[in-house]
Amino acid sequence: MSSQIGNKLKVSVFGESHGTAIGAVIDGFPAGVKIDTDQLLAFMKRRTPGRDKTATPRKEDDLPTILSGVLDDVTCGTPIAAQIANKDQHSKDYKNVAAVARPGHADYTGFVRYGGHNDVRGGGHFSARLTAPLVFAGGLCLQYLAQRGIYIGAHLASVADQKDASYDSVDLTAEALLAPGKKNFPVIDDESESRMRDVIEAARLDADSVGGVVEVGVIGLPAGIGSPIFDTIEGRLAYGYYGIPAVKGVEFGAGFDVSLMRGSENNDEFYMAEDGSVKTRTNNHGGVLGGISSGMPVTARLAFKPTPSIGKPQKSIDYRKNEDANMGVKGRHDPCVAVRAVPVVEAVTAIIIMDMLLEQEGR
Amino acid sequence: MSSQIGNKLKVSVFGESHGTAIGAVIDGFPAGVKIDTDQLLAFMKRRTPGRDKTATPRKEDDLPTILSGVLDDVTCGTPIAAQIANKDQHSKDYKNVAAVARPGHADYTGFVRYGGHNDVRGGGHFSARLTAPLVFAGGLCLQYLAQRGIYIGAHLASVADQKDASYDSVDLTAEALLAPGKKNFPVIDDESESRMRDVIEAARLDADSVGGVVEVGVIGLPAGIGSPIFDTIEGRLAYGYYGIPAVKGVEFGAGFDVSLMRGSENNDEFYMAEDGSVKTRTNNHGGVLGGISSGMPVTARLAFKPTPSIGKPQKSIDYRKNEDANMGVKGRHDPCVAVRAVPVVEAVTAIIIMDMLLEQEGR
Amino acid sequence: MSSQIGNKLKVSVFGESHGTAIGAVIDGFPAGVKIDTDQLLAFMKRRTPGRDKTATPRKEDDLPTILSGVLDDVTCGTPIAAQIANKDQHSKDYKNVAAVARPGHADYTGFVRYGGHNDVRGGGHFSARLTAPLVFAGGLCLQYLAQRGIYIGAHLASVADQKDASYDSVDLTAEALLAPGKKNFPVIDDESESRMRDVIEAARLDADSVGGVVEVGVIGLPAGIGSPIFDTIEGRLAYGYYGIPAVKGVEFGAGFDVSLMRGSENNDEFYMAEDGSVKTRTNNHGGVLGGISSGMPVTARLAFKPTPSIGKPQKSIDYRKNEDANMGVKGRHDPCVAVRAVPVVEAVTAIIIMDMLLEQEGR
Amino acid sequence: MSSQIGNKLKVSVFGESHGTAIGAVIDGFPAGVKIDTDQLLAFMKRRTPGRDKTATPRKEDDLPTILSGVLDDVTCGTPIAAQIANKDQHSKDYKNVAAVARPGHADYTGFVRYGGHNDVRGGGHFSARLTAPLVFAGGLCLQYLAQRGIYIGAHLASVADQKDASYDSVDLTAEALLAPGKKNFPVIDDESESRMRDVIEAARLDADSVGGVVEVGVIGLPAGIGSPIFDTIEGRLAYGYYGIPAVKGVEFGAGFDVSLMRGSENNDEFYMAEDGSVKTRTNNHGGVLGGISSGMPVTARLAFKPTPSIGKPQKSIDYRKNEDANMGVKGRHDPCVAVRAVPVVEAVTAIIIMDMLLEQEGR
Repeated sequence: MSSQIGNKLKVSVFGESHGTAIGAVIDGFPAGVKIDTDQLLAFMKRRTPGRDKTATPRKEDDLPTILSGVLDDVTCGTPIAAQIANKDQHSKDYKNVAAVARPGHADYTGFVRYGGHNDVRGGGHFSARLTAPLVFAGGLCLQYLAQRGIYIGAHLASVADQKDASYDSVDLTAEALLAPGKKNFPVIDDESESRMRDVIEAARLDADSVGGVVEVGVIGLPAGIGSPIFDTIEGRLAYGYYGIPAVKGVEFGAGFDVSLMRGSENNDEFYMAEDGSVKTRTNNHGGVLGGISSGMPVTARLAFKPTPSIGKPQKSIDYRKNEDANMGVKGRHDPCVAVRAVPVVEAVTAIIIMDMLLEQEGR
Repeated sequence: MSSQIGNKLKVSVFGESHGTAIGAVIDGFPAGVKIDTDQLLAFMKRRTPGRDKTATPRKEDDLPTILSGVLDDVTCGTPIAAQIANKDQHSKDYKNVAAVARPGHADYTGFVRYGGHNDVRGGGHFSARLTAPLVFAGGLCLQYLAQRGIYIGAHLASVADQKDASYDSVDLTAEALLAPGKKNFPVIDDESESRMRDVIEAARLDADSVGGVVEVGVIGLPAGIGSPIFDTIEGRLAYGYYGIPAVKGVEFGAGFDVSLMRGSENNDEFYMAEDGSVKTRTNNHGGVLGGISSGMPVTARLAFKPTPSIGKPQKSIDYRKNEDANMGVKGRHDPCVAVRAVPVVEAVTAIIIMDMLLEQEGR
Repeated sequence: MSSQIGNKLKVSVFGESHGTAIGAVIDGFPAGVKIDTDQLLAFMKRRTPGRDKTATPRKEDDLPTILSGVLDDVTCGTPIAAQIANKDQHSKDYKNVAAVARPGHADYTGFVRYGGHNDVRGGGHFSARLTAPLVFAGGLCLQYLAQRGIYIGAHLASVADQKDASYDSVDLTAEALLAPGKKNFPVIDDESESRMRDVIEAARLDADSVGGVVEVGVIGLPAGIGSPIFDTIEGRLAYGYYGIPAVKGVEFGAGFDVSLMRGSENNDEFYMAEDGSVKTRTNNHGGVLGGISSGMPVTARLAFKPTPSIGKPQKSIDYRKNEDANMGVKGRHDPCVAVRAVPVVEAVTAIIIMDMLLEQEGR
Repeated sequence: MSSQIGNKLKVSVFGESHGTAIGAVIDGFPAGVKIDTDQLLAFMKRRTPGRDKTATPRKEDDLPTILSGVLDDVTCGTPIAAQIANKDQHSKDYKNVAAVARPGHADYTGFVRYGGHNDVRGGGHFSARLTAPLVFAGGLCLQYLAQRGIYIGAHLASVADQKDASYDSVDLTAEALLAPGKKNFPVIDDESESRMRDVIEAARLDADSVGGVVEVGVIGLPAGIGSPIFDTIEGRLAYGYYGIPAVKGVEFGAGFDVSLMRGSENNDEFYMAEDGSVKTRTNNHGGVLGGISSGMPVTARLAFKPTPSIGKPQKSIDYRKNEDANMGVKGRHDPCVAVRAVPVVEAVTAIIIMDMLLEQEGR
């Protein structure tokens, strides 16, 4: 029951959308790791709204202030704390939903969970804004992992019914993995960008929203990481993924399609590669067998629901008065949260993979 | 990194398929709970092979011996330990795979993970046999939860491309939820049984295997359980689900379908029910919003891959010699593990829901 | 391996003495608790140097800025983060110990632990300054516990060989418990103040330091809190106490004296009190039996070593060059850290007792 | 709240004194460690009553049956479970204390904690018998640590007012450390044995009991293990030590004596030893500075109260009827539990030190 994840590398997140600041504390990050601050900020900017026209016009700087744990751009080994000040909050926009439960949001469940005391302005602690400190923490982890030859990347696999190409999960290079993140719109196949932007724009004009799927990959993870019952790679990653707002499904490798395959189809045949490493000819197992990494690329797909905040009028309840109520929303929202979620998925993956690596292999 | 799950209610699992015994230790189970031993054994029998002709002919009694924590069928509050002796092991069957990595199994990954020292006979600690103590522990939890008005049930949503009906996630009664578990074949719609048995038999005759999907539901869970970032209901359940062998995908509510919906479709409208409770007219959110229970039925679907052990010859590697090798398997295996997994899914759900409930609401 | 404590109520501490800020994140603090900010600041001031002439002249404001989790002085239930800016750092004072291990300090061990990358200025993360955020967190917990009728207080049991009176552990009133904290010098018997101040002053004039013992008490804790093997009240408290700098011994009830008693002396006889509660006539058990609270006052004593920083020249080593070296210290230090530690001991006690209470009894 | 300790190496204990069996599950023990079974049994025998005339005549075999995790005397890396059957229980002896709270015992507190449902026969889960599985687990850890050049030993520092010699904490050899454990009576100075036996016998004839102090040492632990705030070596060890029945005080290095020293006395001067290692000329810090190991021997002392079970009549209460009651005890008890606790202290030390080592240094 907490806003924290991790065993050896613990990441705590704090903050409310309209509070003083949001931030994170990272405990257990190894000492002596050189941090590239420009690279970190560039990574964080991939999440920032206002940068791409599909996103919400709320401008947030999201520049983190590091309070501890880093000296002259090198980690000390002691807890790293960072905060991001909250600015540019149109509190007025949320006045009319003070006690009306926005459908699809956590207004009602948060009210019950916190006995009505949680800060609801802008979604409070439930706001997608809280992914900013996650991306900060994940950005540090990505840099550490890269120094160990482990790379993580993600792309928009689909928006509504518009699909991107997929990663080649058998032979996934760092270049292919990281290419989408370098673009303005995180896709493999540039041709899919306009198709996706079109469905998003159509939804926006309709005062509605669309969902999407993000595919993520990890390469360079050595075999043997993870444990069966219950510390599987999939279980640890899924636990983190469901902490990202709007995620309703997580699958690994061939995912739900495995239920439609014969064993002879789904089994990935082992062979000895020329460089002496163990590989498989196909990768339906998504790099994980018995919960443990096999050395093949780890791949997963996350399903994001369409953002619940839409412009259409909806019926709901007033959860303080316990009566039916109508609602409309005047705020400014993403018609498709999956787009901005791509770096968040990379960040969460990095935090968890780094934790598992440190747990098993030490520094 | 462990074979344990839970915070307040901790369940540890131990044992190898061909070792002396397998078992579990449950720490944190409340004192004073009356256990119905017959009901517990009946629940465990739903998992036991030899009971249904789709399963493996290996006969296991799987009767647990309780070593501590229960006195005169009432829990003491101290750790409950139970062991299940291993019998009827055809060790000879596994001799020819001593160092050949069975495709789709954890032979290779387990070898790396444990430095070659793990007991591989019968799959060792990775064997699906280890779901027996899970079902024991979950059986106790199911009884406790039922005493609190919370019910959990599951069914075979599909086997290969053969589908069962689905739960009515808006108006799910205990009767409908638990009905499949009372049958020989765990389905809602009896008509689907023969269709499913046919595809399983076809696979068996083909020395192959098929996958499936299990749908699980929870009713009676009060609103307000769970926390955002990261202690969500979905995250906690998914973490446990991926500890069940063969799971490759987990989705909640409308699951991956949410990525294809508009927000206006996916949002579930709140309303005040006649009994004064808060309900939603649809339940795409699967009973969880912002990671917290809403009071509506919690529903999830788990994708099971086809069992990797098949009769067809396959190519692989010898992981001790680091060279290619051929393999066949003479053992006796389930052509569809999803069937026997149904009570396991219920058990794991119960363990986790009970843990979250105890964490937040105490006894 | 972390700067965090707690299971349900988690307190994380971050910061270096000369870094940007120090602070804490408290996760799991119940929602809806009204905080008295004046009382909180008054409690924190008890720790602040510059307030009492026995302490170091370094003036720190130590006023916390709350970043999240509290709205209009009422807790939200979401993580509470607070930071305290660092000012008034005489970095020059520490230049001559850049790589010389100050005896009795963690310079050498910290160097090994963090591979030489930790910030050593002012003691870095090891500085007693890090007790400020602990006192902030503990201050909140003290207020919550008081609202539940549980009170915690401490006093200077001794400084060097000068003793204060002890708490009456059988019949300890809130008034007696809290009285020392209201004074300038935290003692029960005012007469002991001048004796203690004299030995401290003598040490200061001698460029030396003295140690002390702090006695702490908890009243109002209901019986039944804690668990045997290993979650005992003593174990949980001791784990926290040894996180306070300079603690080298912790005992409960009659403490080490029990080793000199006969069983007939040490056993505390139970009886039914007039109000129907269970009490004991003596309290050698210090309110804890079998690791579980009995309802009698919980008492403990912590031994504080004399502050290692002294004005006398000492021999040591240069841990970067691996050679012997001489050192002197020009900094400004407490000749007796036990004095300022009294509110820290109360704070840590409150954090842990509150955690154990929330774990077992919920909100 | 559990009968479990550890982060990476988790040890769970289960069982009641008069239940079916007691035992432990060890999760996280590295694979490939060769276990010397004879040495393990010899270590466990040091705890077994009936072996030395100062102890209780209740004969227990205490031979463990390993259920999993070890194959051909080599650890698999998967959870190691072991059980010890309970025999030779004189249940009749405890009938007259069915609901009378034995002074100094956990009868009353356990009753409250478990709502009256815990098995009280023979002390149930609170019985000192539960130290048997701890000694099993610790025995495995001692062997692992010895393979890494880390040795742990303990001796009876005192029984009542009779003292043994102390360890030389500056220059502690493995031979000196382990010598007491090889004797029938665990002391350094053989001359102290008869003095101690005399006071124990005097107490026994008096139907009374005496307390004692156990001193433990660890050598070979590399510097840099542990973390400040809160994962100190002292905090982690103390947490474990208070899980041993009858412990009421724990101190490290010079312990409570530090409160009587000047800083100039207490500070241990660093110097470069001839072999290039960093040492201190004295060892008041007990091998731990800032919570982190310095490389010098780690020393601690634990105070054990006199066993509460005595033959003298005592007054008490009936906790079910809530009224005063008289009691006598007819059972057979140790007049001094500190004697048998010596191997338990070594075991618990080993479990915790091994956990901290694995956490920081991996395999």
